Amino acid sequence: VVLVNPRNPLNVGAAARAMRNFGVGCLRLVNPYELAFREARSAVGASTVLKQATEYGTLAEAVGDCTLVVGTTAARNRELHHPVRRLETGARLIRKHLAGGRVALLFGSEKRGLSNTDLSHCHWLLRIATREQQVSMNLGQAVAVCLYELTRGSESQRPRDGRAAASPSATAAEQERVTEVLMEALLASGYLQRSAAAQDKLRRLVRRLDLRAEDAEIWLGMLRQIAWKLRRLE
Amino acid sequence: VVLVNPRNPLNVGAAARAMRNFGVGCLRLVNPYELAFREARSAVGASTVLKQATEYGTLAEAVGDCTLVVGTTAARNRELHHPVRRLETGARLIRKHLAGGRVALLFGSEKRGLSNTDLSHCHWLLRIATREQQVSMNLGQAVAVCLYELTRGSESQRPRDGRAAASPSATAAEQERVTEVLMEALLASGYLQRSAAAQDKLRRLVRRLDLRAEDAEIWLGMLRQIAWKLRRLE
Repeated sequence: VVLVNPRNPLNVGAAARAMRNFGVGCLRLVNPYELAFREARSAVGASTVLKQATEYGTLAEAVGDCTLVVGTTAARNRELHHPVRRLETGARLIRKHLAGGRVALLFGSEKRGLSNTDLSHCHWLLRIATREQQVSMNLGQAVAVCLYELTRGSESQRPRDGRAAASPSATAAEQERVTEVLMEALLASGYLQRSAAAQDKLRRLVRRLDLRAEDAEIWLGMLRQIAWKLRRLE
Repeated sequence: VVLVNPRNPLNVGAAARAMRNFGVGCLRLVNPYELAFREARSAVGASTVLKQATEYGTLAEAVGDCTLVVGTTAARNRELHHPVRRLETGARLIRKHLAGGRVALLFGSEKRGLSNTDLSHCHWLLRIATREQQVSMNLGQAVAVCLYELTRGSESQRPRDGRAAASPSATAAEQERVTEVLMEALLASGYLQRSAAAQDKLRRLVRRLDLRAEDAEIWLGMLRQIAWKLRRLE
């Protein structure tokens, strides 16, 4: 991550934090507003990312060892001489490239973004798809979004959603037991009269809950207690 | 976007800015640190998002008209009672849901995130895949990354979902009413004693049912009758 002419220490700190979040280690600053850099660096809890950040006088030096240089831009008001890729597409290219070389991702100053001269160092540009009304993003947030997309799915896509794995759905038999006890409780409460139609309706109602096995147990316990109490009081 | 107990005006402002970037209009704050909210709102250039943000005393009120409530979490150090989905997967579900109802996306306070009671209002949780070393994200950056993913590729995608169209989900307010009447019936039956933990547990249980609006009505009717009967017999 290369920040070109950053002014605000909070933004430098925020960029560094996002880098830690997404496991990106190397931060370079080109011609930072001196105070901002020192302030960010000496902030309580400044991360190693920030402490090891290096400062350069020119962009050319900062990206000297990189084989791909990508600029970020809001890309609406200027005539650009570069291919502009949406973040989703560009991130894929960057990931590929990272297998064989270093990639510099450039972020301009808060006010002006990257200058035309800065852009001339770039191979192509990256654009985050924002809305017309408010195109330009906060620097720290832009860094976070870019790095999120770059590392997206990199945990080798191990979706730990596993609702199904962690807690299997209730079997039909379990759902039927819930239906029966519910019926019993409703009969005792006077909510309905016994009928095949009512039973069918309840059965559908319970099936729509799509209960997990462990929840079915809980519901059974609750409904049994209620039904027992109602019968006892009758 | 619902910010629960936000403390820092800069973060509230950053969240609002990210919302403008990604075209999300409705910001709600639950019990914000008063000064922070006023400061953020009166900041030079405060956006309409911020000016129209509404304040709520409780989370239940803030999400009352939503049919899906999703909490965000770093999800490492706590035992969670909810399915946790990675942002990539969860965003897809949220987009689908948005075709048929309102979705609340919850962000906790900067220090502590969402409490267990906050979480009990959620249907499931969303996790941004960050690195072990630095799991927790800056609030404004987390909002930016989530909204980026949610609107990602949205220019081309118009989700169609039959179930949502045919029978809308129950709102959070309706689900909360079911929770309350269930609690009442269980208290009257002697199944449990009143406690905050029990309430949280029931709330999660009811959220997992993923009730449709019309089914919520039926359950409310049944449980009310049961609770009434139990009280009358006592």
